[in-house]
Amino acid sequence: MKIAVLGYGTVGSGVVEVLMTNAESIAKKAATPLDVKYILDLRDFDESPFKEKFVKDINLILNDEEVDIIAEAMGGIHPAYDFVRGALEKGKSVVTSNKELVAAYGPELLEIAKENHCNFLFEASVGGGIPIIRPLNSALTADEIYEITGILNGTTNFILTKMKVEGRTFEDVLKEAQELGYAEKNPEADVEGHDACRKIAILASLALGEYVDYKDIDTQGITKIKKEDMEYASHMGYSIKLLASCKREAEGIYASVKPMMIPNHHPLAPVSDVFNAVLVKGNMVGDVMFYGRGAGKLPTASAVVADIIDAAKHKDTNIMCFWSREKLEIQSNENEHAQYFVRLKGDPIYIKAIVEEVFKDTQSVAALAPNEYAFITACETLKSLQEKLGQLKDVEVMSKICIKK
Amino acid sequence: MKIAVLGYGTVGSGVVEVLMTNAESIAKKAATPLDVKYILDLRDFDESPFKEKFVKDINLILNDEEVDIIAEAMGGIHPAYDFVRGALEKGKSVVTSNKELVAAYGPELLEIAKENHCNFLFEASVGGGIPIIRPLNSALTADEIYEITGILNGTTNFILTKMKVEGRTFEDVLKEAQELGYAEKNPEADVEGHDACRKIAILASLALGEYVDYKDIDTQGITKIKKEDMEYASHMGYSIKLLASCKREAEGIYASVKPMMIPNHHPLAPVSDVFNAVLVKGNMVGDVMFYGRGAGKLPTASAVVADIIDAAKHKDTNIMCFWSREKLEIQSNENEHAQYFVRLKGDPIYIKAIVEEVFKDTQSVAALAPNEYAFITACETLKSLQEKLGQLKDVEVMSKICIKK
Repeated sequence: MKIAVLGYGTVGSGVVEVLMTNAESIAKKAATPLDVKYILDLRDFDESPFKEKFVKDINLILNDEEVDIIAEAMGGIHPAYDFVRGALEKGKSVVTSNKELVAAYGPELLEIAKENHCNFLFEASVGGGIPIIRPLNSALTADEIYEITGILNGTTNFILTKMKVEGRTFEDVLKEAQELGYAEKNPEADVEGHDACRKIAILASLALGEYVDYKDIDTQGITKIKKEDMEYASHMGYSIKLLASCKREAEGIYASVKPMMIPNHHPLAPVSDVFNAVLVKGNMVGDVMFYGRGAGKLPTASAVVADIIDAAKHKDTNIMCFWSREKLEIQSNENEHAQYFVRLKGDPIYIKAIVEEVFKDTQSVAALAPNEYAFITACETLKSLQEKLGQLKDVEVMSKICIKK
Repeated sequence: MKIAVLGYGTVGSGVVEVLMTNAESIAKKAATPLDVKYILDLRDFDESPFKEKFVKDINLILNDEEVDIIAEAMGGIHPAYDFVRGALEKGKSVVTSNKELVAAYGPELLEIAKENHCNFLFEASVGGGIPIIRPLNSALTADEIYEITGILNGTTNFILTKMKVEGRTFEDVLKEAQELGYAEKNPEADVEGHDACRKIAILASLALGEYVDYKDIDTQGITKIKKEDMEYASHMGYSIKLLASCKREAEGIYASVKPMMIPNHHPLAPVSDVFNAVLVKGNMVGDVMFYGRGAGKLPTASAVVADIIDAAKHKDTNIMCFWSREKLEIQSNENEHAQYFVRLKGDPIYIKAIVEEVFKDTQSVAALAPNEYAFITACETLKSLQEKLGQLKDVEVMSKICIKK
């Protein structure tokens, strides 16, 4: 079976490497050898051993009837969207690691695949090498999923881990992460939570069977987390993690990306460094967690190639289907109930008195520095919390972090 | 589509409950409503709301052409084997949670299913509700798996967790586990490692694509673990876990079930209480871990029903295939290289001297009790370790625990 790889960056070159390295076992599992016929890239790779496979014109690939499967590893929406759409309309299956594309056009591309009796698969778009899309689609099917919460961005998890273990500031660790190549020069997509937002939108859509629009998800990054917050968390037996979460409550669906404090005995707490993990809660199975490398050339390529194998095994049969175009309404996070860790600046005796007057039911936290007061609220809505903090008038709020049980 | 459930014990009644509770979402995912037509059990259930579904004669089910899928939840080899075989030969798909049956007859039953264009699925036989069979079969396909290590028995993990956290003896915690219903009156299958042995045989077979016979797997339980060993482990930053493991080394395949010390930063270390987890190492994806409830009525039934849905979606198409009957040769564990924690009884100064003479390269461990000496060996074979311990002559070996890196 002939494959074309679009884009020869980190993931694309990884896909070619995985297909070559494990060619024998892959051929056995796909029940046919998989042969890379084309690699599309605008750059020249004259030194590459595969140089005769490189092409610059997508139409060569789309019009070649021998090509059954296309691995899209270009990233971004354009021109990826047009290329993928064009391929599916010709009945060629497409596999992709492109979370922007899937979050924005997933339901539409799945529909086109279905109409054309081919497949649009995207295991690698969330959690790198961790199998999570396929378990949601074909393993946890007996359950009604009521929560899915993940550490979905390796860069921010690396930064938070270093901040915790080494007591360093965000800015300091970000610089190191950039030097190590774990963070981009422009780190916004990672540290502001946009990457995790797209990923949880994809997972939530599959888990709930409807379309969660990533633009509806309230997204906060980790840039405001201070090393002092980390110290408080450690003293209380908590870790701070950037959690992407979607859950069904009586009043509707909540979805968010934000740094949260989780107790150290929580299964997501020990997930360190660049590792990712996804915790799924089903009404029958209880808690199930998937853990592994959420990024990196070969782990991501492993997931892309697993999709290629699945597409090869299911030529002419559509296997993904539970993602309707119907858009799910997401509740405002202002109405979600939670406890919060709050740290205020000023004379602790004075602040304690007014906090107790305004908040009634709080838990004091032993101060780790002079001239500040920290406490944990009762379970309340964000709206109510904000109103109460507003009543504290001239007191400066240094931190306000949601606590996950 | 009509289903028959064989056995109305914990798992069988759970299967009926899951099918009823989530009937609507299950029908959507299976693309057809799933209706329990028969429940086979020799006992009477006159009070059951499903009493008209109960039958005592398997032939009623096997000869009913309406029945497409059979969920076997009786456990044990006989008569389960004959019933399952009979069903597959009639082209009825069978799903099962029966690890004894799968470990003993998996390849044969898969072959019969294939010949009869139906499916034999057994997600629930390992790890309860955790999706692990399906990821091995259809997600991690791009990788060559070189190690699979799991905490596969909830009872022993509960006992070891309690021993660690509460500083209690094995006998004491076992009694509590029996009272709580987490351990059977005759706990041998769990505490001696036989249950974990069958499960790792199944996982290893699927991961390696050949038949790992559970009878070839060197199996030790946790009955010899002392609370003192737990204390040493904690002091060294380790946990003791009953690990079922299979790995490919240059010289061949090793497989074992035994208590091991693992460092607390290892992803399997925080897996506590009755939870299970499976760590898979692939040559491309690196480490991937699956975590969840390894037993219990509804988690196990969730996995059985997910298989029923898969069987319904793949009527007349065989989907499992990578388990040849060819038996894999397992290397003797005597030749496997590892470090060991060793605890010896007697005057520490005297013992230290002779240990250093015999072992050359060791790491002393601070003693936690008078009249004993503890150390960690260099990386060596079990055979060499045993020879060296033999040379210590009249020194009593209180513990000898393999260390996993």
